[in-house]
Amino acid sequence: MKVAKFGGTSLANAEQIKKVCDIVLSDPDRRLIVVSAPGKRYKDDIKVTDLLISLAEKCLGGGSAEAELNAVVARYEEIAQGLNLSNEIVKIISDDLKERMGMDKSNPGKFMDTLKAAGEDNSAKLVAEYLKSKGIEAEYINPKDAGMLLSDEFGNARVLPESFDHLARLKDRSGIMIFPGFFGYSKKGDVVTFPRGGSDITGSILAAAVKADLYENFTDVDSVFAANPNIIDNPKPIPVFTYREMRELSYSGFSVLHEETLEPVYRMGIPVCIKNTNNPKAPGTLITPAREVGDNHVVGIASGTGFCTIYVSKYMMNREIGFGRRLLNILEDEGLSYEHTPSGIDNISIILEEKQLDKVNEEHLIKRIKDELNVDDVTVERGLALVMIVGEGMLRTVGICARAANALAKAGVNIEMINQGSSEVSLMFGIRAVDSEKAVKALYNEFFN
Amino acid sequence: MKVAKFGGTSLANAEQIKKVCDIVLSDPDRRLIVVSAPGKRYKDDIKVTDLLISLAEKCLGGGSAEAELNAVVARYEEIAQGLNLSNEIVKIISDDLKERMGMDKSNPGKFMDTLKAAGEDNSAKLVAEYLKSKGIEAEYINPKDAGMLLSDEFGNARVLPESFDHLARLKDRSGIMIFPGFFGYSKKGDVVTFPRGGSDITGSILAAAVKADLYENFTDVDSVFAANPNIIDNPKPIPVFTYREMRELSYSGFSVLHEETLEPVYRMGIPVCIKNTNNPKAPGTLITPAREVGDNHVVGIASGTGFCTIYVSKYMMNREIGFGRRLLNILEDEGLSYEHTPSGIDNISIILEEKQLDKVNEEHLIKRIKDELNVDDVTVERGLALVMIVGEGMLRTVGICARAANALAKAGVNIEMINQGSSEVSLMFGIRAVDSEKAVKALYNEFFN
Repeated sequence: MKVAKFGGTSLANAEQIKKVCDIVLSDPDRRLIVVSAPGKRYKDDIKVTDLLISLAEKCLGGGSAEAELNAVVARYEEIAQGLNLSNEIVKIISDDLKERMGMDKSNPGKFMDTLKAAGEDNSAKLVAEYLKSKGIEAEYINPKDAGMLLSDEFGNARVLPESFDHLARLKDRSGIMIFPGFFGYSKKGDVVTFPRGGSDITGSILAAAVKADLYENFTDVDSVFAANPNIIDNPKPIPVFTYREMRELSYSGFSVLHEETLEPVYRMGIPVCIKNTNNPKAPGTLITPAREVGDNHVVGIASGTGFCTIYVSKYMMNREIGFGRRLLNILEDEGLSYEHTPSGIDNISIILEEKQLDKVNEEHLIKRIKDELNVDDVTVERGLALVMIVGEGMLRTVGICARAANALAKAGVNIEMINQGSSEVSLMFGIRAVDSEKAVKALYNEFFN
Repeated sequence: MKVAKFGGTSLANAEQIKKVCDIVLSDPDRRLIVVSAPGKRYKDDIKVTDLLISLAEKCLGGGSAEAELNAVVARYEEIAQGLNLSNEIVKIISDDLKERMGMDKSNPGKFMDTLKAAGEDNSAKLVAEYLKSKGIEAEYINPKDAGMLLSDEFGNARVLPESFDHLARLKDRSGIMIFPGFFGYSKKGDVVTFPRGGSDITGSILAAAVKADLYENFTDVDSVFAANPNIIDNPKPIPVFTYREMRELSYSGFSVLHEETLEPVYRMGIPVCIKNTNNPKAPGTLITPAREVGDNHVVGIASGTGFCTIYVSKYMMNREIGFGRRLLNILEDEGLSYEHTPSGIDNISIILEEKQLDKVNEEHLIKRIKDELNVDDVTVERGLALVMIVGEGMLRTVGICARAANALAKAGVNIEMINQGSSEVSLMFGIRAVDSEKAVKALYNEFFN
């Protein structure tokens, strides 16, 4: 069985939904289908989820939300007509929305979640109805009946462990199942939603629960690219990479989906395929637990700006047991999370996102480090970029670092920091942000041209 | 004023002591002289300090220590005769030793320290006596009178902060002062010694206290070398390097003196010169707070084997605030100190001395990390070496990393880990221990030939 998830642009109108159904029907293994709420039809369009948020806000404010309701219903009506469905389904959707609008508003978070979830829920009903109208065995799955139980954190729910056993029973059903993404139910029976982008989470949970052979994530790009297309013209697509490579590439230009959402399939070792609804014949990008390396040592170049370092030095630091731990303690205490901590004998550099340092008073932080750790020097350097070459094949290949360092040297890029741990699939260079594009180009040319 | 410290081989016999005095007299600024106990005269000789330890152990065991006492007195007698001094000084030394032997033995650590300190103390008396016999204004300085106050940790004392003010008054004295190294007095008036090599500490404290222009450390090598002479034939001497460079080079082959001992002079920014008593015309190696870089970007190649890594991986590790701190907490809890922690997005490698992992049960440590941090994978890899290129000039020089990585690639050395922080003077490569010599040779050839 394959689990296929379709994003908002794939559900935006009747034409797109027909493409989705063609894709589903073209492979008998595609039996568990997760759908988003209808997305944008054109650049300045409003997503149904955003319409629903406005609707909920109007209701919570005590005003009339008739215009907002009409706007939502109109979207579904347009789709139903385009799919030649009877008006009955539009009435079901309209009644459902009105029922939600009439619910208890004493907990605004709960009311908001109930309204937001209507986008996906009614999308799923519509798609199931369309498939049935074509004589296909298909059904809408109610997440409550299926046992998608979530923590009762409105807008930020997590799946409860028992859900996996409940959802595993979907395997035994016949026909095509249309499952709404983005939400589930608390143990009390309330609708609760995942963080935004949560339909990806729904798909990932379902794929893990039914032990799918493949989790297909249909979006609007052909594949993941070996470098940021804003820096490199027409970068090469990545046909296949591993979970570890995907994670290392996450700094920039690779955020086709949130990696958090993939944790359930990662844990089960289920491969993920990223494909394009508008070009389903393109092979897409496959994310797998492992891959054949061959000559393909490096899969991509990631880069990100907006980093800074906190440099701390103290004579004989390396003999002071607990120094690093106490330093990290201060950061944690101040709510700062860091990326890497390259070090010398008597110094350590904490690399973190620059914007995080705006949250705390920099002078206060420096003072704490100086006073509590009795250090010789603390300085903050801003305007850094991280550039990484990523690939499973790097680990046992002599000369990868030399090629990368040469490419950077030839491009006149000074390396400020370097970081590579054992068993690693990435090599990180810390450079000045102004050199970032030059560095990505140099590394891309070295490894991909 | 210069503070000059002479090690055990410089005090081993009359001939060596004459060299010491010639050196002292050749520069009128050399006025505060720190001496060790007489060291080895030939390869299988026994140092006076070791004779004194045997003597103390015999006394503590309740047996007769006459043979041991005679052996110690004989060493001083031989020196006194060689220096044409009267037997009076030998009697003073002999009486001093007997007095120490008769002291309270209820605290063995205290008794041991009193005996061990006799080596340096009597060395200083002898040297002062010799200078006076030549008509030179010289005096033995009693550390008690001078105010060298230490913590009462026998065998492992630390200087108390007030000592610096006391010792600063030595500046006002005229003539040459001979100060015994290695020990001081507790506030209760007991003799307490520094850890071994402690005469270097005495010299460093004195230099800091009198704000010396230079702290000269006379030993038996001409200089510090740019690479380990056991790996590289006749490596180039390092004429001058900075404190930071010295610390980074400390992994191996550079341990002419313990860096802990230099902390007092480091804090005061006092330069240190390492020179050879047996070849005082050689320029030696100067350690300074800062140096002119010029074309001399790299000062040395350090290497050390006997390292291992603990590799820890966990999906989405980088989003988990406090993960690194909690990992370091476990290490600290188990009494392990580490060198570096290069990391990827979802993994971290802890580099530590392999022998440390023998102290704790490896399985126990792995289990703790797995259970308490809920990680995906923990593995220990042994047999690693660290090779570092060190130099203040590296930081702002494009291409140093490329040259180093190329040299290693050409030598067929695979780089397993790399680590360089911001503002750093070193670049560390983690490699297999079997590749260590090959790597040092390749890097030395690249940067020094």
